[in-house]
Amino acid sequence: MMQYPEPIAKLIESFMKLPGIGQKTATRLAFFTIDMREEDVNAFAKALLSAKRDLHFCSICGNLTEDDPCEICRDKTRDRSMILVVEEPKDVMAMEKMREYHGLYHVLHGVLSPMEGTGPEDINIPSLIARLHDEEVKEVIIATNATTEGEATAIYLSRLIKPAGIKVTRLAHGLAVGSDIEYADEVTLLKAVEGRREL
Amino acid sequence: MMQYPEPIAKLIESFMKLPGIGQKTATRLAFFTIDMREEDVNAFAKALLSAKRDLHFCSICGNLTEDDPCEICRDKTRDRSMILVVEEPKDVMAMEKMREYHGLYHVLHGVLSPMEGTGPEDINIPSLIARLHDEEVKEVIIATNATTEGEATAIYLSRLIKPAGIKVTRLAHGLAVGSDIEYADEVTLLKAVEGRREL
Repeated sequence: MMQYPEPIAKLIESFMKLPGIGQKTATRLAFFTIDMREEDVNAFAKALLSAKRDLHFCSICGNLTEDDPCEICRDKTRDRSMILVVEEPKDVMAMEKMREYHGLYHVLHGVLSPMEGTGPEDINIPSLIARLHDEEVKEVIIATNATTEGEATAIYLSRLIKPAGIKVTRLAHGLAVGSDIEYADEVTLLKAVEGRREL
Repeated sequence: MMQYPEPIAKLIESFMKLPGIGQKTATRLAFFTIDMREEDVNAFAKALLSAKRDLHFCSICGNLTEDDPCEICRDKTRDRSMILVVEEPKDVMAMEKMREYHGLYHVLHGVLSPMEGTGPEDINIPSLIARLHDEEVKEVIIATNATTEGEATAIYLSRLIKPAGIKVTRLAHGLAVGSDIEYADEVTLLKAVEGRREL
């Protein structure tokens, strides 16, 4: 049997390392790549190398950045009385897209997970606590995901931070805007009812 | 608003050039890449460049190859009396996986499509006709896709080749092995009935 020529086989192998990409999709992507313009393929290869080489974590907030400290931590116009805590750097980007939050961030790089043996020292919790001493922080907004681990991490942080006299808040849970009640899961619906507001 | 750091933005942009990958998936893949092992990212970048640089089309059959002529055209053990005609190089790979076909191939790199202005001279039809003169070809198996254009191309080729006294065959259409009649589309079902065999 004829094998794929080695350059294709290797490219398929690389695409298959990406999440949600099986052999069929990887093969389709590899053949597509071969038909792409040379400059686009070169740019792709360069972007891969640069993303790995030029990005680091901010030594203050843990966000992805080219420079340290990151753009947000360096920005004097941001409200230094608020820290919004997220699980991953991409959550910072999601918040920034909203354009409504002007405080600081802290990226945990994970959540507490007894099942996977992830304790407070394994994620960026010590560095968060350290920031609470140094800065004039008045509120910590916990924006971990609405998963079991995310909730547990939120509760843990709340118990840790509140005694220091700092306000701890959590993002509201409820129905997604534009979504149907009919299709909402029970837990979301329960949170929506619990969090109801007077009109 | 904070933008994505440039290395991520560029990587997202590159992923978005791939088929079926929108902004959300591209972002997920870019962040995944940043967490990949450095050697895997380097291998990925290298594979992209190599796939574009080291692969060429065989001057005889049009298949993708590192060497010219390709492995199959050079293979003296293959049956030179048969040429199986496909649309794309990946179709050759699919056929080879079957391990049952030992003849030669011809890759058209497209199909006839009056709608898109693709005529016989725009795809590898002239080179196919030239091969029929040179070699001891007894049968041409047309394995274009079961689409309108694929069928039209098959009929066109059949009319062109038959007068030269060469047998022209087409792959059978019918139900996919393991598939349910209930879910088969009407055209496939019609082809399956037309092509029925005595048991």
